[in-house]
Amino acid sequence: MSFFNDTYNRFAGKKVQRIEAISDGVFAVALTLLVLDIKVPPTAGIKTEAELVAAFCALTPKLLTYFLSFMTLGIFWTGQTAQYNFIEKSDRDLNWIALFFLLVVSLLPFTTAFLGEHFNFHFSVGLYWLNIFLLGLMLYIHWNYAYKNGYVTVPEAERSAINKAVRMRIITAQCMYAAAALLCFVSNYLSIFIIIAIQLNYAFVFFRRWNKTSVHP
Amino acid sequence: MSFFNDTYNRFAGKKVQRIEAISDGVFAVALTLLVLDIKVPPTAGIKTEAELVAAFCALTPKLLTYFLSFMTLGIFWTGQTAQYNFIEKSDRDLNWIALFFLLVVSLLPFTTAFLGEHFNFHFSVGLYWLNIFLLGLMLYIHWNYAYKNGYVTVPEAERSAINKAVRMRIITAQCMYAAAALLCFVSNYLSIFIIIAIQLNYAFVFFRRWNKTSVHP
Amino acid sequence: MSFFNDTYNRFAGKKVQRIEAISDGVFAVALTLLVLDIKVPPTAGIKTEAELVAAFCALTPKLLTYFLSFMTLGIFWTGQTAQYNFIEKSDRDLNWIALFFLLVVSLLPFTTAFLGEHFNFHFSVGLYWLNIFLLGLMLYIHWNYAYKNGYVTVPEAERSAINKAVRMRIITAQCMYAAAALLCFVSNYLSIFIIIAIQLNYAFVFFRRWNKTSVHP
Amino acid sequence: MSFFNDTYNRFAGKKVQRIEAISDGVFAVALTLLVLDIKVPPTAGIKTEAELVAAFCALTPKLLTYFLSFMTLGIFWTGQTAQYNFIEKSDRDLNWIALFFLLVVSLLPFTTAFLGEHFNFHFSVGLYWLNIFLLGLMLYIHWNYAYKNGYVTVPEAERSAINKAVRMRIITAQCMYAAAALLCFVSNYLSIFIIIAIQLNYAFVFFRRWNKTSVHP
Repeated sequence: MSFFNDTYNRFAGKKVQRIEAISDGVFAVALTLLVLDIKVPPTAGIKTEAELVAAFCALTPKLLTYFLSFMTLGIFWTGQTAQYNFIEKSDRDLNWIALFFLLVVSLLPFTTAFLGEHFNFHFSVGLYWLNIFLLGLMLYIHWNYAYKNGYVTVPEAERSAINKAVRMRIITAQCMYAAAALLCFVSNYLSIFIIIAIQLNYAFVFFRRWNKTSVHP
Repeated sequence: MSFFNDTYNRFAGKKVQRIEAISDGVFAVALTLLVLDIKVPPTAGIKTEAELVAAFCALTPKLLTYFLSFMTLGIFWTGQTAQYNFIEKSDRDLNWIALFFLLVVSLLPFTTAFLGEHFNFHFSVGLYWLNIFLLGLMLYIHWNYAYKNGYVTVPEAERSAINKAVRMRIITAQCMYAAAALLCFVSNYLSIFIIIAIQLNYAFVFFRRWNKTSVHP
Repeated sequence: MSFFNDTYNRFAGKKVQRIEAISDGVFAVALTLLVLDIKVPPTAGIKTEAELVAAFCALTPKLLTYFLSFMTLGIFWTGQTAQYNFIEKSDRDLNWIALFFLLVVSLLPFTTAFLGEHFNFHFSVGLYWLNIFLLGLMLYIHWNYAYKNGYVTVPEAERSAINKAVRMRIITAQCMYAAAALLCFVSNYLSIFIIIAIQLNYAFVFFRRWNKTSVHP
Repeated sequence: MSFFNDTYNRFAGKKVQRIEAISDGVFAVALTLLVLDIKVPPTAGIKTEAELVAAFCALTPKLLTYFLSFMTLGIFWTGQTAQYNFIEKSDRDLNWIALFFLLVVSLLPFTTAFLGEHFNFHFSVGLYWLNIFLLGLMLYIHWNYAYKNGYVTVPEAERSAINKAVRMRIITAQCMYAAAALLCFVSNYLSIFIIIAIQLNYAFVFFRRWNKTSVHP
């Protein structure tokens, strides 16, 4: 049977396009499902505009965790997209690593809802952090496997620098997330705000550059 | 670390195809999720055809907001698609602007459900308008960034005209939406109908042309 | 402003690929959402295997409408796919016709749930039929517009035959659906079974051919 | 009408790309919908971290069935992807076989939820097994049809070996699933664990190879 398996494995999972397509699908659904957790306050008991505004403001923790998870998904989608800018071939193992990455992605709406519902417990922050950690871990394994098996196609001169850049980025970010998560022993709100701040660092980079690039190149 | 970041950023988010793919995914899910808000009336208490028809008619506000939001999503999907007809390159910042655009897209099922549930409150109309405004704002920023950074590939002769056309279109539409939203202080129904009318303007253009183009060119 | 609009319209909605992508997305979500309407019977009150089997059998109408709607979506997805085998260009109007087609597609999970919940009412069958009719109508308008505007690229010799084939197919199918829907005045079950039978006609064609093609060509 | 049908059928369903796109969509939605079945424990009655951890641990059967179904979807997605690495043409019948495959895929969130809710009944395991069996059956029919109609494009020398490999793989796996499902008469937990073990066999292959390939080729 090993002959058949070899024949089979040689061809299974070769199309990077399909991994990218199912990834975009899972991310798109996860991004949109997050919003289902923000329940519209029921009509009963709301009679004035002020009461409706108050009911809306009571959704703040839900809106906060929604924003948090949107940033998380955005960051890891960008990370995976960046890797596939270099990876042009694949095999069955890389295919499965990508699927396990998507497993962790699809769990995020659950850990997000869990955090939104039990905002004041350390366990919720810990569970959410674990989700972020697993996302980073799978992305690291994904790159590591693709790099070691020669599926990364970059000019030889830049090979090593890109390899270092991708790895360092994941490790640095994960250290910061872990430190932020530990802050939950001070305050859960502080912990979440720091995680969002780390994520918005991407956006800050973006705003900083805004001026530099506003002259047409 | 700035070297690594530069190396990383140079490659992150270059594939326009993936932004387009995740956008189509988010729009597709949002379009389809909208319908989940139209709850089928429960069997209990419905014994005749007339009662069922009455129960169906009671869904009118939900069907109206459903149609409204379908038009909204359709318009902004068309708008984003139109921009990517010109934009052939991307970078990490444009990637993030596109993601923030999708953030606002994925919020629409929530603001729609909010409006459907609290149809008689100004706050609901205001919240819905804010969603439309943010969609327009992100689309404007998206174009502005791509244009200023030279990612827009059009013949030099048409460059400036296209730039003006895209900008004017967004600004004009947003002024009309804002005016329509303000009409909620007269009546919410009026406000919603005017917004739908503005959106159907697209469809009207379509019907007007129908005759003109019916001769095979 | 008409100049700007002309400039804008010339470029809006030109990519057939994106219409196809959002269509596949909407169909995929609609296909999968249908199953959410089949609610798992709750644990309470179920103590033996026989009771569980009975609870499962009580889901028959839901499973039936699920199958019905899967066939409906499959047929219209195949129909739209077939059209895009010929259509290689697009404009903003075709773009909007395609979006209105998707509007009707995304309504199907609602009319399906409505039928599943109120299986014994003529109104439910009528509403479901209306959905099928609008799907056919939009698909017909879609083809008609693309054909009249010269977006259909087929060899001149086959042009007219293909045009007739596409039109006849939609019209014939719609006549059969309408006849089947009218049978609800005899019995709703009969009406639904006939609709499914018409749809399975596709599958029957398939089984009939199975033998013919089993020799390697 | 047979002329029109022939003309129509010759063109319907020729684009493999669209079948792949809708498949990725259905799989992506199904993968992400699975998580909706893991309900976040409600706040009421949870006052300490220990109680929250206990409430989380009570979700174990749901998390187990979630993991089980993720593996199932992953395996059959990989299987379908592998087939489309060889299949480059299609016709309307193959299109419909692919759609019926997706019908069974979209049922998996239901049979998964059924199993998660009624974990101690043989009927639930039987229903879940039936779903896996139908997935395998449709995939087999899919390959068989494509192979017999000459849509499989591989070098002549490898043709027969690949054909055998694909068939043997499906048959072997299905025999193992059937044997595992029968173990439910000993214990449902045992049955589920063996099914997961069979599926993880893929991952084990993966870990075994990890070392072999860690040297850059």
